[in-house]
Formats: sequence, structure tokens, C-alpha cells
Amino acid sequence: MNPSALDSLIEALRCLPGVGPKSAQRMAYHLLQRDRSGAQRLGDAVQHALQAIRHCQRCNTFSEAEVCERCLSPRRDPSVLCVVETPVDMNMMEQTLSYQGLYYVLMGRISPLDGVGPRELGLDRLMARALDGVVKEVILATNYTNEGEATAHYITAMLKPKGVGVTRIARGVPVGGELEYVDSGTLAQALRERKSCSG
Amino acid sequence: MNPSALDSLIEALRCLPGVGPKSAQRMAYHLLQRDRSGAQRLGDAVQHALQAIRHCQRCNTFSEAEVCERCLSPRRDPSVLCVVETPVDMNMMEQTLSYQGLYYVLMGRISPLDGVGPRELGLDRLMARALDGVVKEVILATNYTNEGEATAHYITAMLKPKGVGVTRIARGVPVGGELEYVDSGTLAQALRERKSCSG
Ligand SMILES: [Zn+2]
Ligand SMILES: [Zn+2]
Repeated sequence: MNPSALDSLIEALRCLPGVGPKSAQRMAYHLLQRDRSGAQRLGDAVQHALQAIRHCQRCNTFSEAEVCERCLSPRRDPSVLCVVETPVDMNMMEQTLSYQGLYYVLMGRISPLDGVGPRELGLDRLMARALDGVVKEVILATNYTNEGEATAHYITAMLKPKGVGVTRIARGVPVGGELEYVDSGTLAQALRERKSCSG
Repeated sequence: MNPSALDSLIEALRCLPGVGPKSAQRMAYHLLQRDRSGAQRLGDAVQHALQAIRHCQRCNTFSEAEVCERCLSPRRDPSVLCVVETPVDMNMMEQTLSYQGLYYVLMGRISPLDGVGPRELGLDRLMARALDGVVKEVILATNYTNEGEATAHYITAMLKPKGVGVTRIARGVPVGGELEYVDSGTLAQALRERKSCSG
């Protein structure tokens, strides 16, 4: 029924998480009918981001530079490395104003059901990063979900034998909860009460 | 906190209806981290649709050609013109298999709160289309919402004095309901029971 360029747009919008056929159609109509300049900006922004965005070689978060600003900052303590699942979680940690070390962003978690194991998560790169000789403590700030816990256990087992201190943020984060939805105070306390991980 | 190309993408995604800051961020991360080929297709599809899609000069729906296939079909009855709010509503009418005439797609409705009056809706173009000398009956199939009703009343007042027959699909469509969510049977009945509009 639709012209093919419109059907292609509707189909392409479905690659966005949480967008089904009905809302993809609504979005396409909206873009073409009510917001062509917004659509132009969207098309340009997607293309530009695909070209410009890569992963920081040190912390693995999204970055336009080879090494991101935070990793290059002389004001951060390079002897502490906080491991988080996503860039959002890293921002949550920053907002506590309680952390001055560096980060490693997993960009995911171990999730056997989704086919994501230690290899797919690239934990060998975290290993290399944590064993640079400068890092003395690795703080595991993965979520307190089943998958986040499994990821923390795996990283602990991987790093403990190498003589690096491994701690876990305290279970102030509600069980089953995700860092993204926790208030800063709770998270700051969880950070203060972090405890050594038993290998 | 984010690289600027990423922030631009997040901001651009917010032009999509129903997408707030959190889901825009989630979508951007998803595209860059998990579905770069989907992102590429999305960027291309937006650009291509913006170039290829215009409005049919006769029925006003989305079209790649100046005049769409349906308007050119010799099998449709050109003496009946059904006025609908959106392309989705037109598709709903088609699915009843009860209508053989042509369409005019308003691409909206009169909505004072949104600043959409008769002028913004381009009702002058509908007027020209309905008064082509071939159209004998205009069937108003706008929604039975307050705005759809107001639109139908306005079009009736506009066309009746010109001697064109104006009918309204029956109120088989639930009051306050939208065509998009009505089953084909109900809509077919509403079409059969259409009645003449009092000017
Ligand atoms: Zn970095
Ligand atoms: Zn047409």
C-alpha cells in the first residue's frame, strides 16, 4: 500500500529497541509529514555518529578520540579501575562525586541466553587493562542482577590469581535493581561500603 | 559526558514521536553498540525517503509518483471521493473491501489546540479536488473524535453550498474511537449506513 521508500523507512525504524510495526509507521508518517527538518537531522546524525564514534582504547566507552578525555585526565587516580556495564552506569558513578579513579566499560554483561560469554564481552581486553602494573584495585560496579553478578564473579576469578585487589560495590543497590535507576546517595554509600571479593 | 556526535544522535532521535531523553539514549547506544548495520540502513532510509516521498497531487497521500497508482486506476469509481485523516485510515477503508471510489487524505485534522485550522490543513485543495465536475459524492470518513467531527462539519459547510453530495460514515465507529483500531466488519457497516450530511 505504501510507496517502497516509505516501507523501507518503516522497516528501518524497527531496528530501534522497543519499536514495533505500529509505532514505526507512526514515526515514519510523523517524520515525512510533520518534521522533515528533524528527519534530515536524524539521517545526518546517524551517518555522522557511525563515522565518528569508536571505543576508547583504554576504558572502552564511546569516544571520538582514540583515548577519551577522562582516561587522559591527570586528576584521576590511575591505581583504581571501576568496571561498569554501560556508559550510563559510568555517568551514574560520576554523579555520586565519590569516585576519582578510572573506568572500564564492558558495554554489556555475561548473558548466556543472549550468547554473550566472556569472549564476546572481550574480557581479555579488561584483563590487559587491569594488569598494566599501575592498577592496584578493581572495583566491580556491575548491576546486582543475575547477569551482573555472574559477570562480577567471572572477573573476580580471572583477576584475583593475578594479584590485583578486586572489590565489589556494596549491596546497597537493591537486589535485582539496575544502577541506572538508583539515586546518587544510595550509590555513593554502596561505593563507600565496597568489600573485598573472595576469589 | 558523551562525545558530541553521540549527543547529536541522541538529540536527533528525540524528534521521533513518543521518544524521551532516556529512550533516545538507549536507542543511540543500541545502534552504535549492537546494530551498526541497522543504523546504516536507518540513515540511508531516512535520506532516501526524504528525497523520494512527496504527496500525490490528486489524493494527497504519500507517493513517489506525481499521481499515485490508486488515483490512476481505471477500476476505481471517480464519482465518489472518500475523505480520511491519514494514510492508515485509507488502508483501513481498503481492507473493508466495500469501497471502490477514490480518496482524499487530509494528512491531519482541524485541531485549534495544535494550531491546525482549515488553512493549515489545506482544505482549499480538497475543495478544488471535490469540485472537479466528476465527483458526485464526498464521503466523510474522518474519525468520530471531537476533532474529526469538527473537521467533518467544516468540510460539509464548505462543500454543501457547491452542490456536491456530502455523506458521513455511520456512527458504527465507537464514539471517541479512531478508525485505525476498528475491525473491518464494523467499518464496512459504517460505510454501508452512511447518511447525508445536513449543511
Ligand atoms: Zn577512556
Ligand atoms: Zn493519489
